[in-house]
Amino acid sequence: MDATLTNGVVRAGQNARERFYDSRGYGRPVDGGALELAPVEAAHLLYRGDLNSVDGQSFRTFLTSAAVSETAFLVYKDLRDRGFYLSPARGAWVADGVAIERGGAAVDFVVYPRGSGPWDGEVAYCVAVAGEREPVPAASLGDIVLAVVDEESEITYLETARPDIEGTSAIDLPEGVAAELLDERAFVWNPPAELYGRGFYGQRLDDQDGEVLQLSLLEAAYLADRGALAVTGGVEAVLACGRDAEGDRFDRRLRAYTELRERGVVPKTGFKFGADFRTYAHVESVDDLGHSELLVRVLAADHEFAPRDLALDVRLAHGVRKEMVFALVDGDTVEWVSVGRLTP
Amino acid sequence: MDATLTNGVVRAGQNARERFYDSRGYGRPVDGGALELAPVEAAHLLYRGDLNSVDGQSFRTFLTSAAVSETAFLVYKDLRDRGFYLSPARGAWVADGVAIERGGAAVDFVVYPRGSGPWDGEVAYCVAVAGEREPVPAASLGDIVLAVVDEESEITYLETARPDIEGTSAIDLPEGVAAELLDERAFVWNPPAELYGRGFYGQRLDDQDGEVLQLSLLEAAYLADRGALAVTGGVEAVLACGRDAEGDRFDRRLRAYTELRERGVVPKTGFKFGADFRTYAHVESVDDLGHSELLVRVLAADHEFAPRDLALDVRLAHGVRKEMVFALVDGDTVEWVSVGRLTP
Repeated sequence: MDATLTNGVVRAGQNARERFYDSRGYGRPVDGGALELAPVEAAHLLYRGDLNSVDGQSFRTFLTSAAVSETAFLVYKDLRDRGFYLSPARGAWVADGVAIERGGAAVDFVVYPRGSGPWDGEVAYCVAVAGEREPVPAASLGDIVLAVVDEESEITYLETARPDIEGTSAIDLPEGVAAELLDERAFVWNPPAELYGRGFYGQRLDDQDGEVLQLSLLEAAYLADRGALAVTGGVEAVLACGRDAEGDRFDRRLRAYTELRERGVVPKTGFKFGADFRTYAHVESVDDLGHSELLVRVLAADHEFAPRDLALDVRLAHGVRKEMVFALVDGDTVEWVSVGRLTP
Repeated sequence: MDATLTNGVVRAGQNARERFYDSRGYGRPVDGGALELAPVEAAHLLYRGDLNSVDGQSFRTFLTSAAVSETAFLVYKDLRDRGFYLSPARGAWVADGVAIERGGAAVDFVVYPRGSGPWDGEVAYCVAVAGEREPVPAASLGDIVLAVVDEESEITYLETARPDIEGTSAIDLPEGVAAELLDERAFVWNPPAELYGRGFYGQRLDDQDGEVLQLSLLEAAYLADRGALAVTGGVEAVLACGRDAEGDRFDRRLRAYTELRERGVVPKTGFKFGADFRTYAHVESVDDLGHSELLVRVLAADHEFAPRDLALDVRLAHGVRKEMVFALVDGDTVEWVSVGRLTP
C-alpha cells in the first residue's frame, strides 16, 4: 500500500482504516473511510513493511527526511515493541477528552494500557520524548513520563510525579540554647538531650550523650530563627555565614529545609549520595532510626536538567533504595517533583 | 600540662616528649627535650584533656581561634579515633624523606600504617583535607587520599590513583562501510557482521543479525576517521554534527574514546549511569559479554570538582560494582584518574 504526505499529514486510502486503525490502533479515521497518520506512525508502518512508500519514499528515505524526528521514531518503535498502542499527541491527533499538555510539558505520545487502544480513551502514560542533550525544564515534570533517547539509541523512561511530602517527626524545641558559630558549622557545648536524641538535629562529636553537638549552618539557621539557638549575632550571623559559603544556594536550601521540618520530615545532609538531603519521615528516637526514604536535591524553580544528570540522580537513588525528589524553590514557594525509573 | 603558641607553633616542655611523642606519635622533638606540636595536634591533646591549655586557651577557645582549621581538626580526630598515628605534613612537620606534595596536591596529613608511627618512616596514606564546598582541581588527584568534611562533619575518604587503562578488545576494521548521518546518530543499513558482533560498535535497531546498525556520533567519527565508514561529507561532517550537538565536549569525548579504543578497551555510552562511558576491557564476542568494569567521565584537564559531585559519581560506581575513572583531556593528551571510596 502506498500513502501520501500533505502538510505534515500522511493519508492512506483503500482498506487502511481496517488494517491499521481498527486492528492495530494506528492513525485517525477521517470521513470517507480514509486514514490519517502522523509521520512517525507512517514511518513505523514503512519499517514493518505494511506500507510500501509514503510519497514514493522508502523507510530509509522517509526516516531521514525532515518529516520524521528520529528520536520520536525510536521511542514509538520501542513502545510498540513492548506491546503498547499509542497515539502522537500533538494538535488534533488525540481523541477528544485526552489532554495534550500535562503541567506545561509538551506530550509527544499518549500511551494506552496494554490491551487498550485509542478507541477506549484510557491512558497509561503521557510520554514526552527528549534527546539526551535536550535541556528539560524541571517545572515541566510531574505529570509525564520522560523518554530519553541516548546517543546509542537506548531509551530511558523516567516517571515523574508531584508527591505529598509528609512525616510525623517533630519535637518541642528548647529555647535559647547557647551555640558558637565557626566557619562552616556551629558547636553547641552543652546540648539538651532531646535536640539530637529525639529531634535528630546535628551530630555528636563523639558517640556519647552530653557531648558537644555539631550543627550544620542550615540546622543552626533554622533553630536560631525559632529562638531555639542563641548565637552571637543571631540568625543574621548564621545566614551571613551560609551565604558566604554558598551564595543563593544557601537560601534555597534553607527554604527547603524549613518546609521539610514543618511537614514533620527530618532532613539530614545528603552529601554521601551527592544530594542536598536524605530525609526521614518518622523519627521518634535517634536510637531507633530506620533508613532514610528520600534523597532531595534543591534547585531553582527555573532549573533545566541535562537528561544525563537526571539519569545519574535517579540511578543512584534506585541503587540505594530511596526515592529521588527535587525541591524547586522560588522565593518562599517550594514545589516537589519526584523522578524514578519506569519499565513500561 | 600547659603549652605555648608562638608563630603558629605550639611548644610544650616538661615530659611532653615522652608522654606525647614517644608513646603516642604527636609532634616533633626539638633540642633540649621539648616538643613542638602543630596547632591541630595540640587541639586534639586539649580535647582529650592531655593538655590543660595552650597560651591560656581551653579546647573550645583554641579550636574556634584562627590557629586551628576546624575541618583539619575533624579529620585528625577521626583518623586518631580509627587507630592511626599521623603527622601534619606542611613545612617542616614531616620526617626527612617523606614527600609533602603528591602530584601537585597539598598534603595535610601523612598517615602511618596502624601499628607504625612517625619514627618508622612508612606511610599508609597522604591525606588532603577539603570542606565539602572547596573546589578540588582534578589534576591534583592521583596520589592522595581526599578527606572531605561535609556540612554535618561526617568525613568521606576518597582514594585516588592513576590507573593503567588496558584491554584486549580489538578487531580489524572493515573499509568504507556506507553509513547515513542523521541529526545525532548514524545508520548503517548493511553492516558487516563483525562490526557489532565482535567489535561491539553501535547498537542494532532490532535484535537480529543483518539488521540496520545505529552508531553514536562518537563511534561514527572514530570509524570514519579510520576509513572504516563512508559517509557523505566524510569525518568532517560527523565532527560538525557532534560539535553542533555538544561543542567542545565532543572533541574531548572523541579524544578519550579514541584512546580507549587504541588501548584495546571498548567504550559504550554511560548515559544510564550518568557517565560518559561504560567500558569493557575484554570483548571477544557480543554474545559473550561480561559486565563493564569502568565508568568514565570525560573532563577538561583544568576541571575543578565540587566534592559533592565527586561523592555522587563514586557512590554510584560503587553501587553498580564498577570503578570510577576520570579522563582529563588537554588537546591530545589524556590523563586517567580513578577515585574510589576508602575506609581507612
